[in-house]
Amino acid sequence: MAIANTPLRLPIPAIPRGFRMAGVRAGIKRDATREDVSLVTSDLPATAAGVYTTNLVFAAPVAYDRGLTPGRGFRGVAINSGNANACTGERGLADARAMATAAGRALAASGEEVLVLSTGIIGEFLPLEKVAAGIAAAAAALGDDDAAAVSAARGMMTTDTRPKLTGGTFSADGTAYTVFGMAKGAAMIGPKLATMLGVVLVDAALEPADAQRLLAEAVEETFNCVSVDGHMSTNDTVLLLANGAAGGGTLHGDGLAACGRTIHEVCEALAREMADDGEGATHVMRIEVEGCQTRDDARRIARTIADSPLVKTAIHGADPNWGRIVSAAGYAGVPFDPASLVLRLNGTLLFRDAAPVPFDAERVSASIRDARETLIEVSVGQGPGRIRFYSSDLTADYVHLNADYHT
Amino acid sequence: MAIANTPLRLPIPAIPRGFRMAGVRAGIKRDATREDVSLVTSDLPATAAGVYTTNLVFAAPVAYDRGLTPGRGFRGVAINSGNANACTGERGLADARAMATAAGRALAASGEEVLVLSTGIIGEFLPLEKVAAGIAAAAAALGDDDAAAVSAARGMMTTDTRPKLTGGTFSADGTAYTVFGMAKGAAMIGPKLATMLGVVLVDAALEPADAQRLLAEAVEETFNCVSVDGHMSTNDTVLLLANGAAGGGTLHGDGLAACGRTIHEVCEALAREMADDGEGATHVMRIEVEGCQTRDDARRIARTIADSPLVKTAIHGADPNWGRIVSAAGYAGVPFDPASLVLRLNGTLLFRDAAPVPFDAERVSASIRDARETLIEVSVGQGPGRIRFYSSDLTADYVHLNADYHT
Repeated sequence: MAIANTPLRLPIPAIPRGFRMAGVRAGIKRDATREDVSLVTSDLPATAAGVYTTNLVFAAPVAYDRGLTPGRGFRGVAINSGNANACTGERGLADARAMATAAGRALAASGEEVLVLSTGIIGEFLPLEKVAAGIAAAAAALGDDDAAAVSAARGMMTTDTRPKLTGGTFSADGTAYTVFGMAKGAAMIGPKLATMLGVVLVDAALEPADAQRLLAEAVEETFNCVSVDGHMSTNDTVLLLANGAAGGGTLHGDGLAACGRTIHEVCEALAREMADDGEGATHVMRIEVEGCQTRDDARRIARTIADSPLVKTAIHGADPNWGRIVSAAGYAGVPFDPASLVLRLNGTLLFRDAAPVPFDAERVSASIRDARETLIEVSVGQGPGRIRFYSSDLTADYVHLNADYHT
Repeated sequence: MAIANTPLRLPIPAIPRGFRMAGVRAGIKRDATREDVSLVTSDLPATAAGVYTTNLVFAAPVAYDRGLTPGRGFRGVAINSGNANACTGERGLADARAMATAAGRALAASGEEVLVLSTGIIGEFLPLEKVAAGIAAAAAALGDDDAAAVSAARGMMTTDTRPKLTGGTFSADGTAYTVFGMAKGAAMIGPKLATMLGVVLVDAALEPADAQRLLAEAVEETFNCVSVDGHMSTNDTVLLLANGAAGGGTLHGDGLAACGRTIHEVCEALAREMADDGEGATHVMRIEVEGCQTRDDARRIARTIADSPLVKTAIHGADPNWGRIVSAAGYAGVPFDPASLVLRLNGTLLFRDAAPVPFDAERVSASIRDARETLIEVSVGQGPGRIRFYSSDLTADYVHLNADYHT
């Protein structure tokens, strides 16, 4: 499997105060040159929140973290890639606990003070000795500089071609706060999350219920508006840790709202990065649907367009094939009057009044071919519901990657 | 676009008494060597029934036929490929009527005695002169032999690599009846039909309401259990014409039931052919889901497995990647206990009790690689609901075909 080390698209963000991290090579991935264990720690006990896959078949680390969040007193997150610890039964649950215990040992904490994330092959038991050795090595390598951030983000990658990192800042009552986010994506990316893992850190102090609400709201509008292949994973997880190391006391009111907005921005940038780095993708599709009765209706139309292999291949082929887009909207299961549907592609009007609009196909095709992002705008004229959704095109490289990625 | 002329997989069926047909080259398709207009006629006025796409964005011929069926007194079906007459507004509806009128003229009948089917490019106006000339040429070439059947089936093809034809017989009260079916598929094949067209002919006499019920029941269990890419088309239509030319009077009771069973068998064989000939497919996936509370639940799980690009690419790669299958079942939106899920691939047990079962991966992989059909059996242990579903694998050729098939 060819994993290019493409350059980062976003600047490396600062790590918030009181957090340290590292990623190391523990030999779990077949390619021994790649990082596969990461550790994120907080010097102060942190509030933690989590949002998880809704798949009935969920992995052991999801079961473990879900039982602990939202809550207080967390000291870190242990992450491995190369093995998802999914579909592994009771032994998998014991292994997730053992992984947390190993991380707790390295941090002079208990297993219940550590959260765990796993991604990779489904249905094989976690190589616990390698994971534990990796955690110990990562604990000895913790840092708070750019190299630490990049190595930690690399340790959670599977078929991602680049680590995904971003950050932001906000102020409240004279105190400056830093938000940091890292994620992995690439495939099994469907709405309601998918094999995506995300870790968001902030040096503000948050009540657990507030942390959970801010994270859930951000995820709903960002990671739940991304689809690479519509396949929902067993392991999807986004965690938020808030340690209060910046001082300023527990956030409420305007400060809390500012924190929520920054978390949202960080999650949106990471979500777009996931679509942009979808397996084999040559285009990221930004789908803006408006005029629906509800936001959920808009999401359903956007997702149906996003997941249609015919739309995805048309964009890959720089083909302004509006018929595929219009027909996808028509089978989304959302009632609307087709005569009210208006479609624009990269700003050019292609369809309205239930009939084709003459347009310069060569020029629109060139606009798709020459840009990484393709903008699909659909309006159905029924109401105020709207959504922004990101997806990837479908290429022969996606097929090659997934026909060859062996269990 | 490379369209191979692969050999037929099924024997060429007999055309029922009183029907004739022909397919001709009318210059609608870019490749002028391919048939693109077909005409099917009945010497006697026939009962007709139709089942249509549920897409909100439906094509003009769908609107036209839907307004006429079920009913009596039909003399034929005019079909063109190369242009779908979809998303063409009021002019498209007028064009569909004009196409029916042209066929009626050739048959000394009115436009309301003819049904129309179109498939191909969306959003361009029908080249009416070419269509009318093709219909006149087909009317002059009508026949009831093998060559007539094959040419008519070829005239409805788009990216199909072979015509799809099959038939069957039944007897009732001493009279022998013949059922004939032809269809086209290849892509935009999703549950609830998709760009698939089907024509079923029988020389029995049926009441319109009975014809509609038999066809709807057969479609629900066959064409609605096929998915190539999950994209529902604007043009999906299956028509049934029953002309009574075999004699024996209008069918009721056991005779009617025998007719329904034969129509079902014909539709099932055509549906399987569509999955087998899915664009770029190297495997047909037969997905048997059982143990659901309802048949619809079973269909939902089967369809989610069938449409997952990760499952499709795994089968293409001969990879017994049961994790992708199990996780797809888990996000189908059907409640079940994952611990009850049992998965077999080509007869080999891979998963039960929420954990992996040791198996000979090399042998199972070889069983996928060496056969055209892959059998995926899922049981969730909740009830009696079951379904059989057909799908295609996903290959780089699918991407190439659809990235290059220009609007």
